[in-house]
Amino acid sequence: MEYRDNFNPTISDEDVFTEIKKERESIGYYNLPFTDTTLFKEYAKNVKQSNIVVIGIGGSTLGTYAIYKFLKHSRDLSKKLFFLETTDPIDIKSKIEAIDLQDTLFIVISKSGTTIETLSIFKYINSLIKCDKHNTVVVTESDSKLKSYADANDMVSFEIPKNVGGRFSVFSAVGLLPLAIVGIDIDELLRGTQKVYNDFFEQKEFYSRILKKARFLVEYKYNFNINVVFSYSSRLEGFNKWYIQLWGESLGKVDINATRQGLTPIGIIGPIDQHSFLQLIVEGRRDKTVTVIKVDNFDNDLKIPDIELEGLEELNYLNNIAFSDLINKQADATIESINNLGDIPCDVITIDGVCESAIAALMYEYELLTSLCAKFMYIDAYNQPGVEAGKIILKKKLETN
Amino acid sequence: MEYRDNFNPTISDEDVFTEIKKERESIGYYNLPFTDTTLFKEYAKNVKQSNIVVIGIGGSTLGTYAIYKFLKHSRDLSKKLFFLETTDPIDIKSKIEAIDLQDTLFIVISKSGTTIETLSIFKYINSLIKCDKHNTVVVTESDSKLKSYADANDMVSFEIPKNVGGRFSVFSAVGLLPLAIVGIDIDELLRGTQKVYNDFFEQKEFYSRILKKARFLVEYKYNFNINVVFSYSSRLEGFNKWYIQLWGESLGKVDINATRQGLTPIGIIGPIDQHSFLQLIVEGRRDKTVTVIKVDNFDNDLKIPDIELEGLEELNYLNNIAFSDLINKQADATIESINNLGDIPCDVITIDGVCESAIAALMYEYELLTSLCAKFMYIDAYNQPGVEAGKIILKKKLETN
Repeated sequence: MEYRDNFNPTISDEDVFTEIKKERESIGYYNLPFTDTTLFKEYAKNVKQSNIVVIGIGGSTLGTYAIYKFLKHSRDLSKKLFFLETTDPIDIKSKIEAIDLQDTLFIVISKSGTTIETLSIFKYINSLIKCDKHNTVVVTESDSKLKSYADANDMVSFEIPKNVGGRFSVFSAVGLLPLAIVGIDIDELLRGTQKVYNDFFEQKEFYSRILKKARFLVEYKYNFNINVVFSYSSRLEGFNKWYIQLWGESLGKVDINATRQGLTPIGIIGPIDQHSFLQLIVEGRRDKTVTVIKVDNFDNDLKIPDIELEGLEELNYLNNIAFSDLINKQADATIESINNLGDIPCDVITIDGVCESAIAALMYEYELLTSLCAKFMYIDAYNQPGVEAGKIILKKKLETN
Repeated sequence: MEYRDNFNPTISDEDVFTEIKKERESIGYYNLPFTDTTLFKEYAKNVKQSNIVVIGIGGSTLGTYAIYKFLKHSRDLSKKLFFLETTDPIDIKSKIEAIDLQDTLFIVISKSGTTIETLSIFKYINSLIKCDKHNTVVVTESDSKLKSYADANDMVSFEIPKNVGGRFSVFSAVGLLPLAIVGIDIDELLRGTQKVYNDFFEQKEFYSRILKKARFLVEYKYNFNINVVFSYSSRLEGFNKWYIQLWGESLGKVDINATRQGLTPIGIIGPIDQHSFLQLIVEGRRDKTVTVIKVDNFDNDLKIPDIELEGLEELNYLNNIAFSDLINKQADATIESINNLGDIPCDVITIDGVCESAIAALMYEYELLTSLCAKFMYIDAYNQPGVEAGKIILKKKLETN
């Protein structure tokens, strides 16, 4: 009798790097920084409508929303972007009532081409306005039913490559098309991702720090099963949501040893959640890591005026402080108070400013971090078998309606 | 030598009930269902402005936002409600640009009266428009600096009782004043809370089930340190945020045995987060309980039209289904798929409809549940000592500016 095993072996940085380079050949998102943007920009140039409505859900909207929400008040955008993503009837009705459908381009995005939420909403839109090649464009896989629909109706369609998963698809047509149409500089987005790509694959300093972080998060996964991203700008609220999907859906898996894995993502906003979640971080159980994200330059000179309010004179020390200074000092105070505790793992990412390259670099960094954690956890980051059972149950419920 | 101890003893349902009844004498939120609403309604009647801007953060805004967000599309409201709650300069600027300040009532809400975010924003508003008794009202403690300011300027002020904590204050002036002004039926809100109050304190069936739930969550706190609220309506997004503050800030504490406690709240929205967080619930580590919240009656007849789209004929089975049916069947499918797994604690709350009493009852139930969990955990649900250190550090950083 002979028996050998090594269960979850420790994997070296070099082995991980080798595997990631191998994975780069088959997993599409790695190479999206080098997407040819010509077709998106050309299409965008000819869009006449003022309103752009993305119909999609999950990976088809979250990344686009993250970038749009981050930049929209800092760019002089020519068009407005809306998202129809849920089956909540009150949500659909109230959003549609606020949009002039006659002056709207619909972008229907579904990788599989048959996403129930997306197609239900699109059918509903069809009952309100004629959808044709003049006001509808499709983003889907090359051989989906939605592609057949587009072809049958002579509509323009853009492809989501089969090897690009929804939650990793923001730098494909899924994100680049709607963002180009509303006036975001998509080449600048890609430049942000290219920098991160090169720093990683050329094994610059970034390579070491992100590997160290992934290794830490996975090695201490039983101590710290919750990873809090604490973003100090309301503009990062969309990024937080995107992170939650990326992290939760990629890392919540059964590993090669049939053991359940999963790191739980939480996204909070500073300073708002100092008045909420921070108490739990500081005094609660030590089951969380904290990543604080700061914006170095808000490019905004709003400041607290030099005004004294009778009865509130003790707050005069706030006078003349710029709000961008205040929020960053609030972040620093939170970081210092967490680090003073000594037993909460905490790191700080400071992005340069409210610009395309900064948000794109942050997102691409998180995609790489997710892939690395998955490698250390011996799981497949790119599938989502756990949600299939619910879909089958739903279909049965609906068909026997 | 003698030694006796009993560490965390098990506490009986009756003992908890006795303690809660005792606590009711000193902790103010318990009795808010019986608040006299006359003054709020009278004040509301005389408000001429079309825009209502609440300046506040955390407990001063989250509950009001939760109720407003839930109801605003289902009520014919006469005024619009906005919240200025963060120091993010881009957020402040973009929100203020969208509001006609000449036609705005400002409600400045701060329990302590010196909340940095709130007063910084209010100072800024003062540099844009003259704030006086005609356009500004204050909600604060009876002896705060903000109260002195209001008195000095002859402004109306409403009191937050000292024994009502911010995160438990939604059914005091904090929530009732702004909600009454925009046209929400605040008496109906209170009727919803009174029903829950009576069911609990008269030990009806609800009493047993909520005690059972609290006991379960605390007894299994080391197995399931994460409590997911999965709300099947986008209208409950504000409720989720409110829940996160209530749960995190109340239960993240050091207990009487000097042991760190804390149950981590997560709020997600269905069906959107079926395409995100659900994978982690289903296949990830068994460290989560799930509470699904459904809305029984959306009072909305939007449905998927009887339309066939060429190429997409296989989706014809969706035709004629009401969206309210679809979203509830999606919830049911998720519940069934989770329950089929057999090892994820899951309960389902179905609220009656999109109405005042339903949301208020849900919120009051969660307040009681929080108090019960705190009792089982031997912690004080009503303080937040963990955030003080950061405030002191911040003040130093700002004063040496």
